[in-house]
Amino acid sequence: MTLPLYQRIAVIGCGLIGGSIVRAAKARGLAGDVVVCEVDDAYRARLAELKVADRLTGDPVEAVRDADLVVIATPPATIEAVARLIGPAMKPGSTLTDVGGAKETVGEAMAAAARAEVFVVPGHPIAGTEHSGPDAGLADLFDNRWTILCPRASDQAGYAEAVARLTRFWEAMGARVEAMDARHHDKVLAVTSHVPHMIAYTLVGTAAEIEAVSEGEVMKFSAGGFRDMTRVAASDPAMWRDVFRLNREMLLEVFDLFRADLDRLADAVRAGDDQAVEDLLTQGRAIRRALTEMGPK
Amino acid sequence: MTLPLYQRIAVIGCGLIGGSIVRAAKARGLAGDVVVCEVDDAYRARLAELKVADRLTGDPVEAVRDADLVVIATPPATIEAVARLIGPAMKPGSTLTDVGGAKETVGEAMAAAARAEVFVVPGHPIAGTEHSGPDAGLADLFDNRWTILCPRASDQAGYAEAVARLTRFWEAMGARVEAMDARHHDKVLAVTSHVPHMIAYTLVGTAAEIEAVSEGEVMKFSAGGFRDMTRVAASDPAMWRDVFRLNREMLLEVFDLFRADLDRLADAVRAGDDQAVEDLLTQGRAIRRALTEMGPK
Repeated sequence: MTLPLYQRIAVIGCGLIGGSIVRAAKARGLAGDVVVCEVDDAYRARLAELKVADRLTGDPVEAVRDADLVVIATPPATIEAVARLIGPAMKPGSTLTDVGGAKETVGEAMAAAARAEVFVVPGHPIAGTEHSGPDAGLADLFDNRWTILCPRASDQAGYAEAVARLTRFWEAMGARVEAMDARHHDKVLAVTSHVPHMIAYTLVGTAAEIEAVSEGEVMKFSAGGFRDMTRVAASDPAMWRDVFRLNREMLLEVFDLFRADLDRLADAVRAGDDQAVEDLLTQGRAIRRALTEMGPK
Repeated sequence: MTLPLYQRIAVIGCGLIGGSIVRAAKARGLAGDVVVCEVDDAYRARLAELKVADRLTGDPVEAVRDADLVVIATPPATIEAVARLIGPAMKPGSTLTDVGGAKETVGEAMAAAARAEVFVVPGHPIAGTEHSGPDAGLADLFDNRWTILCPRASDQAGYAEAVARLTRFWEAMGARVEAMDARHHDKVLAVTSHVPHMIAYTLVGTAAEIEAVSEGEVMKFSAGGFRDMTRVAASDPAMWRDVFRLNREMLLEVFDLFRADLDRLADAVRAGDDQAVEDLLTQGRAIRRALTEMGPK
């Protein structure tokens, strides 16, 4: 495939992820032009100063009208509503994708909202920084990070080509791309991200609630695990509330397994059963080995 | 206090922490000489090659005989036995300390084992690397890391002076020192380290047990939380089994709080109660703010 991969790309929502896609696509010549829709007036004014987009609008329907690729990069809870709004306005033969952390429910919603001639390919770049807002985007955010695409079971002519082109787009932005079923994505991410976030937020709350231990002590003596375990809890609670809701089924399936395992360990500690404790701590040897190879702490 | 702070220091057990104390004390002239006791023959042979100690022995009783400071740096489960062995042989007026991660039970055991004229000051440097063994020690391991000392309620003449000298010793090795009650230490560390390790080990085990998700997928897509959360599970399970046993009371007290908080969050997600989920995720705001300032991920 030759560049540009798309004549026109529309990015809806221009925070960290949307802004990084715009910058990466422009820097690498992946689009003829890039239209950005940002509904927040202050964000939009700042984006105008930054000159990141070829065209800037506050109207999503106007943004997508002639686009060959539309990327919904708004908060996960709003993807369905955005898709409903823009779906009827997208041009036949164009591709619709997103960047949300839960894929099955959101993918269904996007497919239901899009017209029949649009290729819906849900996506999820696993990348981020602590920053948000119009200045946060980075042209190299996706370099060597994984992006998961979740192609749908589609009998549309041209669907496979649309998936291949979107794959190439992410690769051209530096990402490594893996395709999987949306349901499988949601299970994998429940393990690697969603349940860890549930735990991290909870542990921070528990630490704060123990009156005998001050916040200063928690931070000072946190090098022994707490800091690494809870750093992810610095991200936006409202976004995680939404991801938990959107991925509720898989999240709770994995959570219930974790919770049973955790009780087993606590019971063994309570009973003073050293052998059982050690057996439980050595579960997942292969993963522990891989962690060791990546270095500790 | 002028250097050297101690005429003779004996370090019992020369792995990562013991080996770092030896190297730091030598490099900074904190001891007239340093005697190392290492019972493992292969370790001792390697330590002889490395020439880290002024004197090297396999006999703990011989090692402590003329020492002004004795540091037990063996695995936590063995501290009590080592203290019983060397207690009667230590010279009057000398100081006995350790480096274990649980302080109340171990401090009681050391005090019970030491003769009346010995100053027992339990300690815990919060520092580490992924390495262990005779080559692992680093002269700068304690630089800017916290060491907690847990002075005992003692009516011994000279006890305060012994605590001050040991504090100075750790500071001279680069550490920041905080003194606290052993019971309080055990509660703080249950929050910041022991419960996080219980969780991390469990999460790794749970991930391994979900057959639909491969280990490769877990590692590839772990940047979203899992990697940070579980990296601490790369450390030695046998050591953590022992720390959990030695700090059982406080560990389970903090664990039970965490477990109740975790269930509250899962129940809110299950019930689709967005407001309750968001309220729970915003607990511990001050700690979350501090985490944000330290940077995310």
